Order: sequence, then C-alpha cells, then structure tokens
Amino acid sequence: MRLRHKPWAAEYLADHPEILEPDPASYRGKWASRFSKDQPLYVEVGTGKGAFVNELAEQNPDVNVIGIELYESVIVTAVERAVEKPKDNLILLKQDVADLTDFFAPGEVDRLYINFTDPWPKNRHAKRRLTHEGFLTKYTEVMKKGAGIHFKTDNQGLFEFSLESMSRFGFYFENVSLDLHQSGMRQNIMTEYEAKFARRGMRIYRLEAVLH
Amino acid sequence: MRLRHKPWAAEYLADHPEILEPDPASYRGKWASRFSKDQPLYVEVGTGKGAFVNELAEQNPDVNVIGIELYESVIVTAVERAVEKPKDNLILLKQDVADLTDFFAPGEVDRLYINFTDPWPKNRHAKRRLTHEGFLTKYTEVMKKGAGIHFKTDNQGLFEFSLESMSRFGFYFENVSLDLHQSGMRQNIMTEYEAKFARRGMRIYRLEAVLH
Repeated sequence: MRLRHKPWAAEYLADHPEILEPDPASYRGKWASRFSKDQPLYVEVGTGKGAFVNELAEQNPDVNVIGIELYESVIVTAVERAVEKPKDNLILLKQDVADLTDFFAPGEVDRLYINFTDPWPKNRHAKRRLTHEGFLTKYTEVMKKGAGIHFKTDNQGLFEFSLESMSRFGFYFENVSLDLHQSGMRQNIMTEYEAKFARRGMRIYRLEAVLH
Repeated sequence: MRLRHKPWAAEYLADHPEILEPDPASYRGKWASRFSKDQPLYVEVGTGKGAFVNELAEQNPDVNVIGIELYESVIVTAVERAVEKPKDNLILLKQDVADLTDFFAPGEVDRLYINFTDPWPKNRHAKRRLTHEGFLTKYTEVMKKGAGIHFKTDNQGLFEFSLESMSRFGFYFENVSLDLHQSGMRQNIMTEYEAKFARRGMRIYRLEAVLH
C-alpha cells in the first residue's frame, strides 16, 4: 500500500482515544472491560484502512473487534470510518503486530483475521510475512484453543507460502477456496483491495486454519 | 476417463506377466526381489494409461516403480507402452487401490504419486476420492516414515478438498503450486491429461504432503 504523509493524522488520532486505544498493554487479559459487553474477541492483524473491521463489527454486534495497523497515515482512515458510523464493539490499535503478546493474554483471542497482507515476495523478507512461523507462534500464544485464523489474499505466492508455513506449524485447514468469488460463499466481507480485485475478475484465495 | 471395451485386453495382459504382475500379494514385503535391483520404491495409485509411470521409470533407473490401475481397458495401454520401451524397473498392477495394504508391507513404499485422479465431485462420493481419509490411512500404513505423497490435479475442488483432508489427517505441505506450468518447476513429468490441459492454458495444482 502506498503511504501518503498526512500531517493532520497524529492530532486526529490523539483526539479519538475512545476508538484508537493509546495504551493497549494496560488492557492485556481484560479487554472485556474496555468494551461495553463481555463477548468473543476477534482481532484483525494488518487492518489497513479498516473497511473490513468496521463492517465486521457492524454486522456482528455480539462480538468485540480489534484492528491492528502500524501506519498512522493508513489507520487514520479506519478511525474516520468508525467516527462516521460509531459502534461500541470496535477498537483500533496503532501498533506493531510483532508486539501482539504484549496486548493480549494467552487464550484471550477467539478468532484472528489476516486479509490481503503484504506478500513480501523476496525470500530474504519471508520473516515479515504475517503467516511466517514467527508470527504464527505469537498468534497461537494469544488464541483460544481451537480458535481459527481466517486468511484471505489475492497473492498466489503468499497463499502457497502460507499453506506450507501453517501446515508445517501444525495447523489444519477448513473451508479452503482457491477462487472465492466463484465459490458461492455467503457472508464474505470485502476489504478495499478485495473489491478492487473482484471487479478485475482476479482470484481471491481463502482458508481457515485451526491448530491440531 | 471414458472406458472403451477392448476384447483383446485380457489376453494381452495375461501374455505379459513380466510387466503386469498377476499376484502382487505374494511380493508383499519383498518387492526388491521382484525387480532387478534393490532400490527405493515409488508407487503411483490410479495410473491410468501409464504415460507418467513409464516416463518416471525411464528417467529414474535408480528407483523401482509400481503403477496401480483397476481398469483393464486403461492399464492395457500402460502395459503396451512398457512393452514398446522395455525397462527393468517398472511393474504394473491391475488392482484396486483400496487393497493397497495387501500388496505392500509397512514402510515398504518410499514415495506415492497421485496424478489427475477422478475428482468425484458429488459429496456423497467423497469417500472414493484418492485423497480421502480412508485412502490416506492406507497410504501411511505402507509408506516409510517421512516419505511424501506427490499430488497433481487440474481440478480445483479436488485440490481444495485434499488440502483440508490431508492437513486434518496430519500431513504438512511442501512445494505447493497453484499454477504449476507458470511456476518454472523443473523436472515435471506430464501425464496425458496434464499435457492436454497445459495446451489449453488451464491451471495445474500440485503439492507434496509429508506426515508430521
């Protein structure tokens, strides 16, 4: 994703601590108390501009949703969307996914989403892929036993890598689709990227991964 | 595959016991003695007309190859190919893959191939797919620890099913390709089907599965 510098972004984010939680580590193990209701917690890593988490939270009032995105100039759009259409079950974090275990206690996360993440196609950057073993280790530390990772991408190479990386780690797969938009799947929330790719007739790859 | 009745096939097969072994159960656990050399054993289930096993045996003189196919009118072509171009490291079996454990002892098989097998697209026929749990159980009974299943298909639905079925069974994946002929893979032996599909520009899906 191209990053545009937005000089007003920092101030805007600072003005909305009700949506962009500035101190997530203080809620580690007690996120239920930060939301209005004590209900299942779904986390998206690499939330981008937040179309997905905003829609997910709106469609699922019985779930608490947290979206994590590192880049200020990107997550500001996610916060704007939440300000425009307020919902009490969405929190955003401007944080590094690598620090995930600082924000969530073991077993605190009921589902994890990875949508259209950066494929880092060069082999020497493999460790940066959000489905690399290093990240999978962190996810499993915070996820409930039996919880799933829901993963979508348009990038064939990243999907191939992820099938290898996740299965080797000990995940098995459910609801695999190698062409999501031709598969008749109901209830698919589209991200910005996905809508664009779908219009171009490109394949979207999807899987759910569960730890053995 | 369309089956044509070939009235001469039974007699032709009976005339070539050196290639089509009529009593495979008698070699269970001692296949090395049936071949000229004691070397690794690769087995293809659902061998069809045998272009793949013939080529595999020819390209790999340091491996013993067995192809299994149930239908007489199909395997006869595989035997004809072997007669035309004799090699001492290929045996064919006109047998049901379901009886695999009658023909091989535990750990006797060093690699298993499944190429362009019938997808059996209806859910009620799922058990007939050669990557169904029932067959996976038999494969693992005869395969060496750490041995791989090499699987190729043009059928998207069968590949999706196989990713789920094999990962749930406890296999992990290596060398996954969601578009084999665009992946720059060397040393790919094409089956009849594959050559046809490749000419049409259709995707070929491939994986190697190894038991955890």
